[in-house]
Amino acid sequence: MKAEASPLGEFELIRRFFMRDAKPRGVGDDSGVILGIGDDAAVLALPPGTELIAAVDTIVAGRHFPLSTDARSIGHRALAVNLSDLAAMGATPAWATLALTLPSADAAWLTRFSAGLLELADEYGVALVGGDTTEGPLTVSVQVLGHVPRGMALRRDGARDGDLLAVTGTLGDAGAGLAFTTAPPTVKSGPASPDVAALVQRFDYPTPRVRFGLAARGIASAAMDLSDGLLGDLPKLARACGLAAHVAVQRLPLSDAMRAAVSVGQAREWALAAGDDYELLLAVAPARFADLETAAARLNLRLTAVGELHDGSGVTWSLDGRDFLPVTHGYEHFSQASTQITV
Amino acid sequence: MKAEASPLGEFELIRRFFMRDAKPRGVGDDSGVILGIGDDAAVLALPPGTELIAAVDTIVAGRHFPLSTDARSIGHRALAVNLSDLAAMGATPAWATLALTLPSADAAWLTRFSAGLLELADEYGVALVGGDTTEGPLTVSVQVLGHVPRGMALRRDGARDGDLLAVTGTLGDAGAGLAFTTAPPTVKSGPASPDVAALVQRFDYPTPRVRFGLAARGIASAAMDLSDGLLGDLPKLARACGLAAHVAVQRLPLSDAMRAAVSVGQAREWALAAGDDYELLLAVAPARFADLETAAARLNLRLTAVGELHDGSGVTWSLDGRDFLPVTHGYEHFSQASTQITV
Repeated sequence: MKAEASPLGEFELIRRFFMRDAKPRGVGDDSGVILGIGDDAAVLALPPGTELIAAVDTIVAGRHFPLSTDARSIGHRALAVNLSDLAAMGATPAWATLALTLPSADAAWLTRFSAGLLELADEYGVALVGGDTTEGPLTVSVQVLGHVPRGMALRRDGARDGDLLAVTGTLGDAGAGLAFTTAPPTVKSGPASPDVAALVQRFDYPTPRVRFGLAARGIASAAMDLSDGLLGDLPKLARACGLAAHVAVQRLPLSDAMRAAVSVGQAREWALAAGDDYELLLAVAPARFADLETAAARLNLRLTAVGELHDGSGVTWSLDGRDFLPVTHGYEHFSQASTQITV
Repeated sequence: MKAEASPLGEFELIRRFFMRDAKPRGVGDDSGVILGIGDDAAVLALPPGTELIAAVDTIVAGRHFPLSTDARSIGHRALAVNLSDLAAMGATPAWATLALTLPSADAAWLTRFSAGLLELADEYGVALVGGDTTEGPLTVSVQVLGHVPRGMALRRDGARDGDLLAVTGTLGDAGAGLAFTTAPPTVKSGPASPDVAALVQRFDYPTPRVRFGLAARGIASAAMDLSDGLLGDLPKLARACGLAAHVAVQRLPLSDAMRAAVSVGQAREWALAAGDDYELLLAVAPARFADLETAAARLNLRLTAVGELHDGSGVTWSLDGRDFLPVTHGYEHFSQASTQITV
């Protein structure tokens, strides 16, 4: 299907916003990029002795971020959610391709979008090696490619009976940030405090735990990233390992900003059920937990043991030593309530 | 952002339609798939001595195919357009990831969509190793990964002064098929003939020229696939090579179906300007053209010399020895007339 040629065509769009100095951003001598944007496909050299790690994640306006979101945050998020998948595999990020569907080629929007995406790409040494732009409702699909030394990928299914469950950082902040962004401040009145601003920042600019994923390789027995909330994601890890999981809810790490902004009960609800934290959930043998803690401390990253895995199936929760039955669920697409964003 | 859990959640959707027997379709002992769908990312083993080839292409309902298109054709197209990019690099296809945005999880639609995609994947030995489903307007983004022996990729920029320009197959058929699908049959009256049905089939089920791309490696000096029409794509090849291109329009290969269905003038217009053919455009040194012809003949594929490259820049056209100035343009997204599908 065709239409008339344009003043700012697809090729020009890619060149103008995503290439620099005739080669893609992030392409250095050791980038492995033999041929980047501009041919039918990219040609890439994988380091010797490694396996390729590939992930794809799509974000859709109004589904994964509010329609009002700054384009810089959208660009950051599109890559961050994918780097988070590489982090969960213990992989070194290397390359990304971008499939961008947008309603119109708005230069101001694209400037901010590409800045958000490329700043994060630079931080993690990711070269953007391919892209595709199409017209339509705003949808951003990024595929990331990385590598691990042969046989060293952190899988979901490696945990054993007795392994501890640990999480990086603090949980629920992004969910709280989204709630404060999109809902009237019913929880606390008054103008947005620095605490609320910090929570909103956590939603708008998630930090993929790439460096910790690399450090956890060879120590953790299993890992996944928390994109859909602990309630949604932990059952997947337990199922992959063929084990039962138990979590002590009072141990879930809460940020100072969260504690200052809302009640502990509200904070725990977000820590359990809200998505978008992009922290890592790890399983680790008790004897190796101290090594994992050391690795986290070196990165100034909080690491918290929140439960354990044991023979059996299913996930159970406790609060202060008593059974706890969460009433909310993790995020799933195509749910009955899926047209409605609940916070 | 989260919503209530669903009866047919994302994980179940992927498992049900895109996995078979607990492992992805197409995964054999030699697939290189160490870990497929179901973890945070796929783990893949690249054959020794090869370089990785990565491409991404997105198709959007109403932009790249009519809204009325059969889901089986959409699934086929989503992978075919990407395999065509690998073909243009002379790459062996290996793996694909799928980012599927769709308005609702309709089982009948998904059954046909996945059949179309997976049949083509099986034909070319492609394993689907990752996926992502989101709710929204129908958008299908596929990323394909393949490989070539080190240094052997067919690039766009390798041609030299005096090289011949050749195309595979016949041109314009898909454009004609789309026209017959979407427009009233003003060109010829009466019910759809077998010829018209053949043209529509060419639009609905494009054949990526993967086998010929492999055969052309080491013979052709440059290659690209024709997705946007010769008028849109040839200038890209000429620019990449830093050469001028000339094409004799009367040489453009037209199918018997096309010749039977419409006038030669109309056929040439589609052969020049219509997209979606997914034939290969190649440059080849005159001394190697016979080798390329032999390679095509072995695959029962037509190969036609249509012009040549020479020092200079720009693209010129002739018809029966006289200058020819095409009035239409190749396909570009975000064009001024882009909300309108012209055929």
